[in-house]
Amino acid sequence: MMAVGKSTLPALHPIAGVRLGVVAAGIKKPNELDVVLIELAPKSTVAGVFTRNRFRAAPVRLAESNLRDGDIRYLLINTGNANAGTGAMGDQDVAQNCRLLAAHAGCEPAQILPYSTGVIGERLPADVIDAAIPAALAALTPDGWALAADAIRTTDTRPKGRSETIPLEAGPVTLTGIVKGSGMIRPDMATMLAYIATDAGIERDLLRRLLRDAVARSFNRISVDGDTSTNDACTLIATGESDVALTSKQDIARFADGLLALCTDLAREVVADGEGATRQMAVRVQGAKTEDEAEQVAFCVAESPLVKTAVFAGDPNWGRILAAVGRSGVNDLEVSTVAIAVGGHLIAEGGVVSSGYDEAIATELMAALQIDFCIDLGRGNAEATVWGCDFSYDYVRINAEYRS
Amino acid sequence: MMAVGKSTLPALHPIAGVRLGVVAAGIKKPNELDVVLIELAPKSTVAGVFTRNRFRAAPVRLAESNLRDGDIRYLLINTGNANAGTGAMGDQDVAQNCRLLAAHAGCEPAQILPYSTGVIGERLPADVIDAAIPAALAALTPDGWALAADAIRTTDTRPKGRSETIPLEAGPVTLTGIVKGSGMIRPDMATMLAYIATDAGIERDLLRRLLRDAVARSFNRISVDGDTSTNDACTLIATGESDVALTSKQDIARFADGLLALCTDLAREVVADGEGATRQMAVRVQGAKTEDEAEQVAFCVAESPLVKTAVFAGDPNWGRILAAVGRSGVNDLEVSTVAIAVGGHLIAEGGVVSSGYDEAIATELMAALQIDFCIDLGRGNAEATVWGCDFSYDYVRINAEYRS
Repeated sequence: MMAVGKSTLPALHPIAGVRLGVVAAGIKKPNELDVVLIELAPKSTVAGVFTRNRFRAAPVRLAESNLRDGDIRYLLINTGNANAGTGAMGDQDVAQNCRLLAAHAGCEPAQILPYSTGVIGERLPADVIDAAIPAALAALTPDGWALAADAIRTTDTRPKGRSETIPLEAGPVTLTGIVKGSGMIRPDMATMLAYIATDAGIERDLLRRLLRDAVARSFNRISVDGDTSTNDACTLIATGESDVALTSKQDIARFADGLLALCTDLAREVVADGEGATRQMAVRVQGAKTEDEAEQVAFCVAESPLVKTAVFAGDPNWGRILAAVGRSGVNDLEVSTVAIAVGGHLIAEGGVVSSGYDEAIATELMAALQIDFCIDLGRGNAEATVWGCDFSYDYVRINAEYRS
Repeated sequence: MMAVGKSTLPALHPIAGVRLGVVAAGIKKPNELDVVLIELAPKSTVAGVFTRNRFRAAPVRLAESNLRDGDIRYLLINTGNANAGTGAMGDQDVAQNCRLLAAHAGCEPAQILPYSTGVIGERLPADVIDAAIPAALAALTPDGWALAADAIRTTDTRPKGRSETIPLEAGPVTLTGIVKGSGMIRPDMATMLAYIATDAGIERDLLRRLLRDAVARSFNRISVDGDTSTNDACTLIATGESDVALTSKQDIARFADGLLALCTDLAREVVADGEGATRQMAVRVQGAKTEDEAEQVAFCVAESPLVKTAVFAGDPNWGRILAAVGRSGVNDLEVSTVAIAVGGHLIAEGGVVSSGYDEAIATELMAALQIDFCIDLGRGNAEATVWGCDFSYDYVRINAEYRS
């Protein structure tokens, strides 16, 4: 499977108050890591966003419900089986795992958030997971982030993670995140899962708002093929163990910026690892009336199969971009105010090819691994960027051959 | 280029009051048919629907404007150049052709509807078209439908047309239609164009309503890749030369049924000729609260790249269909009421695989050239069917290599 560019996992800093235990339970092949347990210090706050797909997997339903009551102590993640499309049996299976973990760890089942990713429609091997829980508890270590990033992979070609230290006025705090997902595009081996933790102290309602805002402009602005899985989830943990609490307006803004930067990095890693991807693209729409409008146009361009095949071919095909902008549903859009640039080179304005357009320059810019489109709607000051990737032969191959 | 199955153009009946002249003007390669002139008897009524893309080509803007004033006598169609993305120059060029045709034919320029299809962003060779107009006028014949179906093709692998005789109470009327389009999916060689004519007498407002209703359930329910061109147009002509006028409620309903059947046939021909298509699919959604809701779910399934690659692979991958239904935006959808069948074989119900599901049977049904999915939402009585095709290696190849 291809992926854009090379990426090595950077050093992932431990977060005081978070320990991770990673084991091979035997859900996937023997000796493949497939269960990750994350333990949180008491008084940690937790926020989560989950897939908006109406058909959500059993663990997603339970995690969302447990998260409402708060006071979370453990996250239990398995790969190899999504526990989706499994009906009432799926609910029983995930509840069984939470009960067993609670008994071993000395907490309530409702203090556990479960996550599953893998094949859809097959029953979760709950007994296999149960059997692995004592070993996962025994393996807990603050240094488990890199191993966890590796274990949560399914079709990902590489582990993905980032760490940041954010210098707040109240003192420095650390932020570490890991993500899996080959683009939210494979309901079979479903799911984008992201786990981000900080040692800052953040009150729960604020934590929720921070996560929601960061996800809206990062994970929710990437697309490999527009399909959304039944299991997507992003979880943000604040342990407060650094004794630096997020209280001042300035610190909140600074932390929000750092969180957005980290989420954007992780989101772009997911796109770069998209199935069959050979090139990445960033579609920035500016000059929009509202951010929603900018996002709508950017998605329409980034998800257009015709634009995606042009990016695969390295073809500066502005007619396809213009047509995608035109059908994006912005009703009073005027062609005369729209300008399109690739890599800073103006290719079209006012609905026609730009007078300074140079096909040779544009073709060279389109040969890059990362292609930046900028579309100015010329009707306002709002902007949004969506990250996507090309449509390659390999995308068809991977998705056509997967179950055969 | 591939296409699903074989199709030979059936006999296309002449329509009293319609003559067609087809010539090779030299826009495409020498001796390729590229200009079609359609002459309408005086007092014909005409209705048209045009692309909803905000960036519409110059001929689309002029045709829509001329159609508002009515009293149309000629349709002038060229292939090889879309006259889109050509700015004010494009408006001048198409106006020049209409003026010249009007002078030769003895009508007003406003009595002409122009259409263009072909490459985007290149200037229309208006002088070349002007030079061909006398020959096109000289070539006018009631028997020109088949030649016109051939001449309006761009990337289509075969000409597409249908004729029907509809026995109304007031007497029989004839309906003949031709269409071009390899799926509305190539803004470069843009456009789905359809021309349908009848010798029935139909008052203009009624004609408009009949066309709008038929298009909504036929041409607007097909998708190859979700891209909409800048030039799409469908035109319905009623000459009244049969002396059978559409007046009684029963005749109007009967004619509407015949028109819908003809438009559906033509629309499915476009899908079958979709770029790179190896299999067709019909996605029927029933048990919906409203027809809009049914259409929304059907489009989401038919356009899902994951479903389309599964169809290419002949893989009865119900998880992908379920996930597409779940993300289709119907907010209060309950997984417990949804059932999915392929070729009449129930594969999933209540969010889980059906107890009677047989992978061998489903795989055999998925091996057909035409695959019928039926999704029952179990919450109402409305239904809609969307026709699509698979996503193949050839789709990527055709669209990646097109300009290189």
